[in-house]
Amino acid sequence: MYGWANQLFPLCRSITGEGTRKTLRYLQQLMPSMTIHEVPSGTPAFDWEVPDEWNVHQAWIKGPSGQKIIDLDDHNLHVLGYSAPVDRVVGLEELQDHLYSLPERPEAIPYVTSYYERRWGFCISHRRRQQLEPGPYRVYIDSTLAPGSLSYGELILPGRQREEVLLSTYICHPSMANNELSGPVVTTALARWLSSLSDRRLTYRIIFVPESIGSIVYLSRHLQRMKQRTIAGFVVTCVGDESCYSYLASRRADTLADRVIRHVLEHQCEEYERYSFLERGSDERQYCSVGVDLPVALLMRSKFGEYPEYHTSDDDLSLISPAGLDGSYCALKKCLHLLEHNRIYRTTVRCEPQLGKRGLYPTLSTRDGALKQRDVRLMRDLLAYADGRRDLIALADEFGVDAATCIARANTLVQEGLLEVLDEPR
Amino acid sequence: MYGWANQLFPLCRSITGEGTRKTLRYLQQLMPSMTIHEVPSGTPAFDWEVPDEWNVHQAWIKGPSGQKIIDLDDHNLHVLGYSAPVDRVVGLEELQDHLYSLPERPEAIPYVTSYYERRWGFCISHRRRQQLEPGPYRVYIDSTLAPGSLSYGELILPGRQREEVLLSTYICHPSMANNELSGPVVTTALARWLSSLSDRRLTYRIIFVPESIGSIVYLSRHLQRMKQRTIAGFVVTCVGDESCYSYLASRRADTLADRVIRHVLEHQCEEYERYSFLERGSDERQYCSVGVDLPVALLMRSKFGEYPEYHTSDDDLSLISPAGLDGSYCALKKCLHLLEHNRIYRTTVRCEPQLGKRGLYPTLSTRDGALKQRDVRLMRDLLAYADGRRDLIALADEFGVDAATCIARANTLVQEGLLEVLDEPR
Amino acid sequence: MYGWANQLFPLCRSITGEGTRKTLRYLQQLMPSMTIHEVPSGTPAFDWEVPDEWNVHQAWIKGPSGQKIIDLDDHNLHVLGYSAPVDRVVGLEELQDHLYSLPERPEAIPYVTSYYERRWGFCISHRRRQQLEPGPYRVYIDSTLAPGSLSYGELILPGRQREEVLLSTYICHPSMANNELSGPVVTTALARWLSSLSDRRLTYRIIFVPESIGSIVYLSRHLQRMKQRTIAGFVVTCVGDESCYSYLASRRADTLADRVIRHVLEHQCEEYERYSFLERGSDERQYCSVGVDLPVALLMRSKFGEYPEYHTSDDDLSLISPAGLDGSYCALKKCLHLLEHNRIYRTTVRCEPQLGKRGLYPTLSTRDGALKQRDVRLMRDLLAYADGRRDLIALADEFGVDAATCIARANTLVQEGLLEVLDEPR
Repeated sequence: MYGWANQLFPLCRSITGEGTRKTLRYLQQLMPSMTIHEVPSGTPAFDWEVPDEWNVHQAWIKGPSGQKIIDLDDHNLHVLGYSAPVDRVVGLEELQDHLYSLPERPEAIPYVTSYYERRWGFCISHRRRQQLEPGPYRVYIDSTLAPGSLSYGELILPGRQREEVLLSTYICHPSMANNELSGPVVTTALARWLSSLSDRRLTYRIIFVPESIGSIVYLSRHLQRMKQRTIAGFVVTCVGDESCYSYLASRRADTLADRVIRHVLEHQCEEYERYSFLERGSDERQYCSVGVDLPVALLMRSKFGEYPEYHTSDDDLSLISPAGLDGSYCALKKCLHLLEHNRIYRTTVRCEPQLGKRGLYPTLSTRDGALKQRDVRLMRDLLAYADGRRDLIALADEFGVDAATCIARANTLVQEGLLEVLDEPR
Repeated sequence: MYGWANQLFPLCRSITGEGTRKTLRYLQQLMPSMTIHEVPSGTPAFDWEVPDEWNVHQAWIKGPSGQKIIDLDDHNLHVLGYSAPVDRVVGLEELQDHLYSLPERPEAIPYVTSYYERRWGFCISHRRRQQLEPGPYRVYIDSTLAPGSLSYGELILPGRQREEVLLSTYICHPSMANNELSGPVVTTALARWLSSLSDRRLTYRIIFVPESIGSIVYLSRHLQRMKQRTIAGFVVTCVGDESCYSYLASRRADTLADRVIRHVLEHQCEEYERYSFLERGSDERQYCSVGVDLPVALLMRSKFGEYPEYHTSDDDLSLISPAGLDGSYCALKKCLHLLEHNRIYRTTVRCEPQLGKRGLYPTLSTRDGALKQRDVRLMRDLLAYADGRRDLIALADEFGVDAATCIARANTLVQEGLLEVLDEPR
Repeated sequence: MYGWANQLFPLCRSITGEGTRKTLRYLQQLMPSMTIHEVPSGTPAFDWEVPDEWNVHQAWIKGPSGQKIIDLDDHNLHVLGYSAPVDRVVGLEELQDHLYSLPERPEAIPYVTSYYERRWGFCISHRRRQQLEPGPYRVYIDSTLAPGSLSYGELILPGRQREEVLLSTYICHPSMANNELSGPVVTTALARWLSSLSDRRLTYRIIFVPESIGSIVYLSRHLQRMKQRTIAGFVVTCVGDESCYSYLASRRADTLADRVIRHVLEHQCEEYERYSFLERGSDERQYCSVGVDLPVALLMRSKFGEYPEYHTSDDDLSLISPAGLDGSYCALKKCLHLLEHNRIYRTTVRCEPQLGKRGLYPTLSTRDGALKQRDVRLMRDLLAYADGRRDLIALADEFGVDAATCIARANTLVQEGLLEVLDEPR
């Protein structure tokens, strides 16, 4: 995953354009079943429409002595996202109106965009900005803003059942690592693992979209089906560093996605940060919006907006690590694993069944026996609590145990005919 | 308000009689639309009936040497409320059976009544009582207890909608300030403010009744309509001092009246006292009774029964203040203001709307912009949470902000067609 | 109760057999209406069937020098419960495979059974076991395991209503006191008290069964009726010592049985232990199983499995006491008393009724009066809260008072026509 991120880092991504398309093609090599879709500029999507496509080829400022002060070739963040083309000579005063920098983080280039208002501009470290001489300056941006298309990737992995799990990540951020190359590479790894499974109960809808406009466009095309089928979904973002895990709740805060994330994090780590939907910021804004109401929550490392390098050139490849990516991958994989096995069980016999005659219970009443105490206890608890109303994760939460440890025990009891699997709570 | 209280203080009020009637006439001058109603003695009202009317003209005790020991002219509290007439000479021992004093508050005259059992009696400071000589004493009470009527004031301020808010206060307490002239004067000020509004969404039912029997009589005449229409109600009592605010819950504790009081007090003051309905004591006893079940709660300063001057001559005009009255007035006014604007909103578009094209969102992705961050955030939260199920106060509670700050933002979004107003939760 | 326990202590009980039958006959002398039922071996009961009947007449081990090392006549626990007959000479090594002892409690004989797997064996103190010489040993168990029957006692005490309360205790534990002679003797005392009542509202189903198999057999015969009628039930076990009271919840944790136990213990003692159904262990396992779902909870002293003498010879008559038994008896008796009087009330009049005209309220408004303040307050609270939805225990919990103190007050109000009794919440 870290290697993929390294290769994708230099591409100049935005919500449309060639950099994004190249990113998708790179990922398609890793997931050959993924399809790439193009949605023409001007296509309406709820309250929005697909904007013109933006591509930038060169962007630089030359100082009074003719040397380049900043250059897109040095860092993709140097150009204002969706900047209009420009080729002029300006004085320092006019230039200042088109520069963006961060006084509170003077060495970093900020990440700034102007998708829906035509502007030209450059992003620069505040330290460099303060050294600027009076001028004149030649400002040059060779960009195009013209009808084209918005690109996204989609991978549907069918399962035995039509119930779907959504994985959504975004591919519009240029040259930043935690936010956002970690999401695409972890999602790709999850997609490859899911593809490799010989048997899937659930269907997986995995999408790589530009943030906001991409998820809005995607929802505008698939809302009905997604509302009918989605049982849980995850926006995969900010999953690359080694900081404390975070959970950001869905609006309703009690969906299956919320429950599985909390369950996994409670059994995976000592503590984790909890954020309410009031602190939302990525595509959960669309998935959980009123009338869309998908059960989507987030498992992250350092949450967007909460770490100092956020949306600057300091969010680089040194901020993320193989271990950071792998921890998030494992946690999300466990979420998906639990969802695959998260069934509603009901005990088939009245009173406790006689486990002893099935070899599932020690025949002596003392505390030691051939079977592990813990397993016997878990089977007895499953039988005692499987009332056909709550799913496996809810039962494990009640027992205070990791749901993963319940799966094999529940399967044994199903095989013995002591538990039945229900499709719906009764 | 403090001036009105000053003028009303000397009147000898009770649950019936001329003192109460004069009080109502005084208030009517301040609220010309208020009507005064008379309900004849003997009129049934649920389990009760209107008692005989009581008027007292003179009441005094003369000691052995002929000097007046106590005199109604000195303080209205000196006579037992609803005292029967008497004109006798008695020894100290017999007199003692007809005296009421407070050993634990020896300087104060207590407030005692005997509405439904015929007695004669005097209230006296305990210090004075202990100085009494053997006698004989002449006891003289020139009172009448005879068929008449119970008087109450009623002001209906119609609004665009039939949903009603109830304001109820009581006008039966003689010569006490916090309990109870503060209630009538604050209610009068609220009524005048409501009358002055050019546009009212809600209808206001504002009543000035004798406590208990008055609200029972009033309910017996209007119960059906009040049950159908009342969305929130307030008993206005003990709102004159400058102590910590108090909230006394309705029986159900979660009505709109409860929610708006808690919301206002949480944003108005550092802390406030909370009392359950088990600590009820005023007309909420009737409004929240089983089968009446009106959504009525109380916002107070020092709660009745909880301050040492309660129901004694020490609850005088020095206990209340213009600032104390005004604070309560403002808090209750804010409750009414929020109720006027407390609507159920629902977002009209799927996904987040594009605020930028409406000039409601900064077109640059940086943190600074022309619009105030707080306003943008509030609009986005309103759009994200307005699910047609919860009202504005509930949303503001979820956001942790003052609902008053949401009103303008919600109106903007309604004007933009992004929020719709529902009459009922859906 | 302590005397009965003394007499029952020496009997060699098990889940079937003469010791159990003798125990039931002894209890029948104390409760002549109790019937004893015999269920033949092989009778199916849900997932189980009644096992062969076990009787043991002699059991001993003789050492190399011919002296008896352990002997059933010394302690009933010396023989493995349901041990097969044996008469052999064995070396120490083979003997060890058939000995059970507790290294962590070296002086105690453990209680071990093998009901459903044929074994022979002896239980011995660990200290004695460590002193054993090489052998040879003669092991002799004169027991029979043959078709017979399972015995249980049943006492139905009819009441005016068909709603039932279940009391269930078990009579299969040999020569242990807290677990389990305390349960049978306290249940017997409760049954005798209930029998003596001249008027019972509720019907009582009181059963003395072998643990697990006995309750399963009993449920297999009566499930339909018990599900329809049982409003609360109690497994009576571990009620003999003087330790802190314990409460073990039903699976749903909010049944009437749970509520009445919590209410009684909250008003009976400073603190008590709370256990969830996850810590279940006695016949509540059957009564609360999925599809049985009876409202059964436990009020105990030291909970089974939680005290060091549990299931050893140290759980002897010195562990329990007359005071310990009596405390439990009184607490459970209070539970039953409250259930008898636990009605759903509804106030019949709108607004507060006029208590004064019924002599239920002081006619003076001062704090002192002929009636006790507490009683007046309780009556007013009952009238204010009796909404026809909650029962008396729920009201008392809301008031923070002992429900027992509400019964007389509620009856007064029913007699005055101010409260009505409902059969169902409305």
